[in-house]
Amino acid sequence: MTGSRGTMKKLINDPANVVDETLEAFVAAHSDIVSLVSPRVVARATPATDKVGITIGGGSGHEPAMVGYVGHGLADSAAAGNIFASPGPDVILGAVRAADHGRGVVLLYGNYSGDVLNCRLAIQRAKAEGIHVRAVFVSDDVASAPPERAEQRRGVAGDIIVFKAAGAAAEAGLSLEEVERVARSANARTRSMSVALSGAELPGASRPTFECGPDEMEVGLGVHGEPGMSRERLGTADEVGRLLAQHVADDLECQSGSRIAVLINGMGATPPLELYLVYRSARALLAERGLIIVRTYIGEFITSLQMEGVSVTVTDLDDELLGFLGSPARSVGLVQ
Amino acid sequence: MTGSRGTMKKLINDPANVVDETLEAFVAAHSDIVSLVSPRVVARATPATDKVGITIGGGSGHEPAMVGYVGHGLADSAAAGNIFASPGPDVILGAVRAADHGRGVVLLYGNYSGDVLNCRLAIQRAKAEGIHVRAVFVSDDVASAPPERAEQRRGVAGDIIVFKAAGAAAEAGLSLEEVERVARSANARTRSMSVALSGAELPGASRPTFECGPDEMEVGLGVHGEPGMSRERLGTADEVGRLLAQHVADDLECQSGSRIAVLINGMGATPPLELYLVYRSARALLAERGLIIVRTYIGEFITSLQMEGVSVTVTDLDDELLGFLGSPARSVGLVQ
Repeated sequence: MTGSRGTMKKLINDPANVVDETLEAFVAAHSDIVSLVSPRVVARATPATDKVGITIGGGSGHEPAMVGYVGHGLADSAAAGNIFASPGPDVILGAVRAADHGRGVVLLYGNYSGDVLNCRLAIQRAKAEGIHVRAVFVSDDVASAPPERAEQRRGVAGDIIVFKAAGAAAEAGLSLEEVERVARSANARTRSMSVALSGAELPGASRPTFECGPDEMEVGLGVHGEPGMSRERLGTADEVGRLLAQHVADDLECQSGSRIAVLINGMGATPPLELYLVYRSARALLAERGLIIVRTYIGEFITSLQMEGVSVTVTDLDDELLGFLGSPARSVGLVQ
Repeated sequence: MTGSRGTMKKLINDPANVVDETLEAFVAAHSDIVSLVSPRVVARATPATDKVGITIGGGSGHEPAMVGYVGHGLADSAAAGNIFASPGPDVILGAVRAADHGRGVVLLYGNYSGDVLNCRLAIQRAKAEGIHVRAVFVSDDVASAPPERAEQRRGVAGDIIVFKAAGAAAEAGLSLEEVERVARSANARTRSMSVALSGAELPGASRPTFECGPDEMEVGLGVHGEPGMSRERLGTADEVGRLLAQHVADDLECQSGSRIAVLINGMGATPPLELYLVYRSARALLAERGLIIVRTYIGEFITSLQMEGVSVTVTDLDDELLGFLGSPARSVGLVQ
């Protein structure tokens, strides 16, 4: 809803200060878990020692992502960009330094051109400082490119699965090469797809990232409101859950009898009740295919400001990933 | 946004089935924590033994409340009503039975006339079955009645604090009388207040519970969209956080140097980023008054479907409550 100032109705102060004020409040609220080590760089309140570092990051406006996944069993540090914009190389480098405990750092980012470019610049500079860095760019969004161009796919809620698996591998004492391998395995075995009923409204913007009519939904969009595969008639929860689960399972090509993890992500304005209804029908479709759900995550893991939408993520688990997903984690966005 | 069917844009199936379908998905998703023991009654997957039982409940549409607070360190069972409507006496009685392990049951509900009436009917029948039940009706909403009629106040997000304290007391092995006393103490020391930028949209309804103009906010409303104290010009996050914290702290009359818990609750459609901005200014006001925040909770704890709004809850802690709030809990809505 647009107010008389010509901008969206929001509980904010000056739009220019939204990110820094949010981070200030975030570390104050969760000072037992995180601290702000330099502008836009959040790290564990109690740094780990003698393990491979994990650093994550991306644009702001996706809270609890990314800073909410800093903590035991997950990341050592996170770099925060402006709203929906990659952090710059300096900030990423600051996060790499905060994550380094002498055994190297695995950098996990969504596969977006700005993030990839800035990460590469930061990695060059980290190498010059003697820090070994490996980067894995998450690319789980099946709607963003066809299978034959899978390397071009965007990272969406599958981020959480990759963070959890790699974070657990690092916590278990694995080497830099092994933690990188686990992250690549988690990414390769994970797919997601989204629908949205409304666009995201950026602080200070005069209109949403896209308009969606009262009987329409955008199918296959990205977490920044990137255009989807199609605009369709608004479906029921049953139709939407089945549609998303079907696309994801088809693309993943997992076999009957496979054990899977399912993550249902709300994008900011979707009531939990609707997330459960979508899970209910996604679960039914996955069961019909003989897939066995052994881990379920339902909630707001990576939001898009107040976007009304939902994504379904499926990971085809092997024994290794099953173990890593089940290990303890203590962060703002995920505790288990 | 109203679609061509004349109802709100939602990801649901038949509005008549929303509650039962949600509960079906909820217990399927979290079968390690909860199970459905009879229609609309959720209990711990692994029942406790030899402790006072805690049972909670209320209308649906507030997820993760109430079923999300069943688990170790919190409630033993929960009764779910229709959307925004009290569960009936039969359902509440079923939840009381599921919570009873021979040492009596403390029933914790928000202070709403329908809930109070149905709880009293269920308690009479439980007593006839030989189950000792004590009821505590949470009444933390300062905007719903003046201090001299505090017993008429509604229960809102303060529910979570009362559940946590009483749940921990029961888990620690305290007697029925002692658990009831802890629940009453937590309620007496807790206050909340809300603002909203939009009304809730009930499944199948043709309009929100209230309309709120593009430059307006409703101050002091209840979690079902009950009318607030006033309709005011939409404030900044700084103004809203200070306004809510000031009303709550004034009513609570806590002294400089007191240790407090602060809970910031999002009502369903408020981005986490905005909750942190409200916390930031509430925290500044509370610090100016010499209050020491020792526990902070920020998130969606009790929602109102897709209502865009936020509440600030403050608890004036004593040593006992501080201990009980800090103990472990493992539920869908709260893990610590």
